[in-house]
Amino acid sequence: MLEELKESVFKANLDLVDQGLVTLTWGNVSGIDREQGLVVIKPSGVPYDRMDPTQMVVVDLDGKRVEGDYNPSSDTPTHVLLYRQFQSIGGITHTHSSCAVMYAQARREIPCYGTTHADHFHGTVPLTRALTADEVEADYEGNTGRVIIERFAGIDAASMPAVLVAGHGPFSWGSTAQKSVENAVALEAVARMAMGMMQINSEATELESYVLDKHYQRKHGPTATYGQSSNTHLT
Amino acid sequence: MLEELKESVFKANLDLVDQGLVTLTWGNVSGIDREQGLVVIKPSGVPYDRMDPTQMVVVDLDGKRVEGDYNPSSDTPTHVLLYRQFQSIGGITHTHSSCAVMYAQARREIPCYGTTHADHFHGTVPLTRALTADEVEADYEGNTGRVIIERFAGIDAASMPAVLVAGHGPFSWGSTAQKSVENAVALEAVARMAMGMMQINSEATELESYVLDKHYQRKHGPTATYGQSSNTHLT
Amino acid sequence: MLEELKESVFKANLDLVDQGLVTLTWGNVSGIDREQGLVVIKPSGVPYDRMDPTQMVVVDLDGKRVEGDYNPSSDTPTHVLLYRQFQSIGGITHTHSSCAVMYAQARREIPCYGTTHADHFHGTVPLTRALTADEVEADYEGNTGRVIIERFAGIDAASMPAVLVAGHGPFSWGSTAQKSVENAVALEAVARMAMGMMQINSEATELESYVLDKHYQRKHGPTATYGQSSNTHLT
Amino acid sequence: MLEELKESVFKANLDLVDQGLVTLTWGNVSGIDREQGLVVIKPSGVPYDRMDPTQMVVVDLDGKRVEGDYNPSSDTPTHVLLYRQFQSIGGITHTHSSCAVMYAQARREIPCYGTTHADHFHGTVPLTRALTADEVEADYEGNTGRVIIERFAGIDAASMPAVLVAGHGPFSWGSTAQKSVENAVALEAVARMAMGMMQINSEATELESYVLDKHYQRKHGPTATYGQSSNTHLT
Repeated sequence: MLEELKESVFKANLDLVDQGLVTLTWGNVSGIDREQGLVVIKPSGVPYDRMDPTQMVVVDLDGKRVEGDYNPSSDTPTHVLLYRQFQSIGGITHTHSSCAVMYAQARREIPCYGTTHADHFHGTVPLTRALTADEVEADYEGNTGRVIIERFAGIDAASMPAVLVAGHGPFSWGSTAQKSVENAVALEAVARMAMGMMQINSEATELESYVLDKHYQRKHGPTATYGQSSNTHLT
Repeated sequence: MLEELKESVFKANLDLVDQGLVTLTWGNVSGIDREQGLVVIKPSGVPYDRMDPTQMVVVDLDGKRVEGDYNPSSDTPTHVLLYRQFQSIGGITHTHSSCAVMYAQARREIPCYGTTHADHFHGTVPLTRALTADEVEADYEGNTGRVIIERFAGIDAASMPAVLVAGHGPFSWGSTAQKSVENAVALEAVARMAMGMMQINSEATELESYVLDKHYQRKHGPTATYGQSSNTHLT
Repeated sequence: MLEELKESVFKANLDLVDQGLVTLTWGNVSGIDREQGLVVIKPSGVPYDRMDPTQMVVVDLDGKRVEGDYNPSSDTPTHVLLYRQFQSIGGITHTHSSCAVMYAQARREIPCYGTTHADHFHGTVPLTRALTADEVEADYEGNTGRVIIERFAGIDAASMPAVLVAGHGPFSWGSTAQKSVENAVALEAVARMAMGMMQINSEATELESYVLDKHYQRKHGPTATYGQSSNTHLT
Repeated sequence: MLEELKESVFKANLDLVDQGLVTLTWGNVSGIDREQGLVVIKPSGVPYDRMDPTQMVVVDLDGKRVEGDYNPSSDTPTHVLLYRQFQSIGGITHTHSSCAVMYAQARREIPCYGTTHADHFHGTVPLTRALTADEVEADYEGNTGRVIIERFAGIDAASMPAVLVAGHGPFSWGSTAQKSVENAVALEAVARMAMGMMQINSEATELESYVLDKHYQRKHGPTATYGQSSNTHLT
């Protein structure tokens, strides 16, 4: 079942590796079939170079395995909660990419300092609060999803397709599995550029809000002028 | 039309990727045929690994598409304005390469700290002012070109083949598309070295002006001693 | 003899190169056959691209060569002492990977700042004291092993599979040669992330201890939920 | 003539690229035939991917071309002066590798902070003084060699196989062209590690002198224990 989605989730997982965002097995991508309410996700701890599309695991929106011989990624409960809450999204990526993790560990959000950021994230990339001991004990992966959702109160997940989980690392999303990987790539680049910028000028200020709006809209707005009719793809 | 120029612009775009300056689709190279007043430029948002020379777009010096099935790069209005103003240049490259962007976001110029810089840029790499809200609203890409031109009042574009656009990133140019890529590569290296140098010694001073002149002239002056008769190429 | 172990130690040495942890010939991996009390280790100073499994050297637990035409790695005395002391380990890796060396040279331990760290190391990665002049003179490589063992008084080597030798660099270990390489990869990533985090927020604090415990246990505890039945592998 | 030396100098130039030390054409390696007093060096500005052994240029110890269709590297006068002064060396490498250039631009020497350094350089890597305007005017490349030689008064070039030219970058050398490349690789690694170390602990001190001596001697001393009979090679 869901052969096409499995193929695209499989490919998105490999793109994550090709883009240099994955060390060892630290990363996973999922995609959802909204009609059937089923999620396809990377199996847990399987090396990327021995993975094939048939190993992708199908789970329902409670995170229960519906098909597949492998255990789904240990982050599955976080993925399914985000799919339930953010109705517009079709794919989710989780990585431990270096610079995004540095911000997550430093417990700092990433303000918009330039147009690279504005092309992908419409404002400051948010940071969750830390989980409490009780939350970790009771349902760690589920509560990771819940603090993300809590932080997104009043934030549109469609125009802010990423978050930093405090002390952990980034989750990103998009209309497809592929797009969620692109946003993971953009987040890592944006985090690296923000760090370097602060090193050059620790008093540098945020990008003018009218430039932020212009860049975000020209790539994502209703009258987007970037790309071809079907918009941009990951290279 | 312009098959040879399309081929060289296509190759220059791929060189940009090979040199590690491009993330996703964030970069574009163009070249001009001065006799015909036509510019060949990368199509917008097309992945580099599926690109071929026939997809290169031909535009006139007003930025209007003359040939090609694809939309030209969204930065086309900036490119054509620079070609109109800087008569000596034959190619332009725009990237979001990390260290050059860090300087552009930090809103700092890059002084000449060493001979690597002096071999390519005859002095401090300039930074534009920020665009106003009105300029962004009225003609964002065109006005990006205009603030570059404004900043180059009194600066010779032939001996200073790069600029940082505030809050955005670098544009570079050269006698050909290929040379503009080489200058993009050099700018990124020079920005990285300047950052590291300041980390080691925050009071480091600029290169002696007579060494700057010597290095620039031995590579670019009328009696250049570097390279073979046809000068250097990108490796 | 020990053909299978030689093959796996050989492969683990190549993985070390593939993971980008090795410059020139600065790195070595060994594995032990506990039944026979014999250690297989990389030959000293042999380039990785001309190495084959038959060149692996077999030594006993006194470090004496039992089989092989080549000299064993100059760090052999350190390896065998660790095997004697840490009965649970099956493989050891030594590298001069950049960020781990930076901490070793800075003579600073690496506290647990995030879940990437917690997934592999159950607490602060320890640093040895410096060797005395007498210790260096008498038995440099042996005493390197002895200061590691001295530092591990009261520390469980199974849940803290790495150490920084002051002024030198990291040693890591694991249940197999392969696992020791994975821990070397994780240590380098964790060191890089810690450095970047301090750059963003020099007052950042350690990960909550209950998250550290949770992450460590979900990957390594008796009821580990990460990976498949046979746990994770290096990709 | 000198076909074997041309082949090894050609290969050493390619190794420089493989090791990631070269951007564009910024680097060159030479080797000397001491019996004939002839030096083989990379042609100036020729791209590495179109280079072949027959393009290597033969010059005498005055830097005059003896054989070859190409101009020798513009740094040839520096190379030949070093060969005349440092009788023990057989190969020289010049690069603009990032971290070594950062130190050269910062006008700071690189003290020995760890065993990676001690394995290759017996003490602080020295920095030249800046050239005067007259020296630049009169004979820039020759005087670059002369300030290196001036700085090495009282320093043994065999145990300190590298130097930083102020505001420019590193030169390294060794018993062969290949060994000079290895020392260029080691210098870049050592510079990177020193920078990172200072970021972690800005008051970190130098390696104990008895460890420096031990490491240097075990790799290079008369009773070296590292490597096989013919010592180590570049991988």
